[in-house]
Amino acid sequence: MNVPKKVSVVKIGGHVLDRSSELDEFLDVFVRLSGHRVLVHGGGKKATEVSRSLGIETQMIDGRRVTCEETLEVVTMVYGGLVNKNLIAHLQAKGCSALGLTGADGDIIRARRRTGWDRDYGFVGDIESVRGEVLAQLIGGGLTPVMAPLTHDGQGTLLNTNADTIASTVARALADHFDVDLIYCFERPGVLENPDDDTSIIREITPSSYRSLRDRKVVAAGMIPKLDNAFAALEGGVREVRICRAGDIAAGGGTKILFD
Amino acid sequence: MNVPKKVSVVKIGGHVLDRSSELDEFLDVFVRLSGHRVLVHGGGKKATEVSRSLGIETQMIDGRRVTCEETLEVVTMVYGGLVNKNLIAHLQAKGCSALGLTGADGDIIRARRRTGWDRDYGFVGDIESVRGEVLAQLIGGGLTPVMAPLTHDGQGTLLNTNADTIASTVARALADHFDVDLIYCFERPGVLENPDDDTSIIREITPSSYRSLRDRKVVAAGMIPKLDNAFAALEGGVREVRICRAGDIAAGGGTKILFD
Repeated sequence: MNVPKKVSVVKIGGHVLDRSSELDEFLDVFVRLSGHRVLVHGGGKKATEVSRSLGIETQMIDGRRVTCEETLEVVTMVYGGLVNKNLIAHLQAKGCSALGLTGADGDIIRARRRTGWDRDYGFVGDIESVRGEVLAQLIGGGLTPVMAPLTHDGQGTLLNTNADTIASTVARALADHFDVDLIYCFERPGVLENPDDDTSIIREITPSSYRSLRDRKVVAAGMIPKLDNAFAALEGGVREVRICRAGDIAAGGGTKILFD
Repeated sequence: MNVPKKVSVVKIGGHVLDRSSELDEFLDVFVRLSGHRVLVHGGGKKATEVSRSLGIETQMIDGRRVTCEETLEVVTMVYGGLVNKNLIAHLQAKGCSALGLTGADGDIIRARRRTGWDRDYGFVGDIESVRGEVLAQLIGGGLTPVMAPLTHDGQGTLLNTNADTIASTVARALADHFDVDLIYCFERPGVLENPDDDTSIIREITPSSYRSLRDRKVVAAGMIPKLDNAFAALEGGVREVRICRAGDIAAGGGTKILFD
């Protein structure tokens, strides 16, 4: 491999995707980030809207979409098609040669259908392996990968997979090839000490302060998997992990996740 | 560039895509073709089905789908998402490292929205430029590009583009880098002298015999753009063009298009 260079892996969720002017501002900042870039996106409201229009009931358990066969079709259409390809077209218009991917493309992310949980989440995949070398090759060729939250089982079945986990896994896989920063974009300016006060940003979270924040119930259910993914990325060789507003990715604000 | 090697560009349409056992047989043959491969796919009935379920009227003029804004969303979901990503997952299961693309990905195919025709076809694009070097780079990296019939205008808008034309254009662009064969899969065993007799395959069509076939009205409206695309590919340096059944791509049957 060449001399390591910087790659920023940025994850955006529904909050940004659902607001076209905010998305446009975000993409303007994203394309100007120094070094290479990878964008990982969630789904936004569109999957729920399309499901509703098609008469498919959306079932959520603890914030996770239960993926029946019909819902898998919808998320394949919406995440892999509509959201991903529109992001690509917009990035191209901004001079960034983006290339859209699911985990099935280039066999980049293989997953196992989730079993053994208390509930059946349907076609939901837990990641088994990542081919960072395929992503590194695309990046080395001047392309900007844009990843939809879909993986595959290697047997011909696509699986719905959490975008935060994809971002963390991709960042770790790229850490073998590049200096990697991982940025989780969030609807708030960072992890907050007081959820009602946007200025109460916790500037740094370390493993020990994380334990204390959990004990004090400052970080709630929705934030715990994100922080777990952040620490997993650090353990996997990612240089810096940050949680911030989509508009703040270049400015260095938000909450930094780091070791003690 | 490296020493030229063979690439087969194979286009499949709705007929194969809509029948899962036929598609599976086709993919088995496709992954065993010698040399590199590119697959270009159409849409099949699914776009019409999804449009109907969403209450969007499908308007066709001379076999072409009129692409209003809502229809563009549907084809982006169905061609770029559902059809493309399921093909990728199936090819991966057969050991072929496929990578799904639209013309927007890697800026591979840029098009201009069609204007100046007698009818407004909506978000339909006529191809302006192709970046064969991006496809050659992916192929050189061991990946099998699978192209959905979508392009972009470079200004952030996706466009619906005829898959036969994409296949011909991609084949020509790759002819600068490889020895290229172009194969159009068709629901019949080739171009037929008598449409009611599947054994009346015309084995070869040259520019002069094409003129005669048109004069005698042996080739009808639907076949003329396909043959025009075939000759354009030959003129652009493609080595061989064939029209045959999906199951016959390896066997060498069907109708061969060649110069006099």
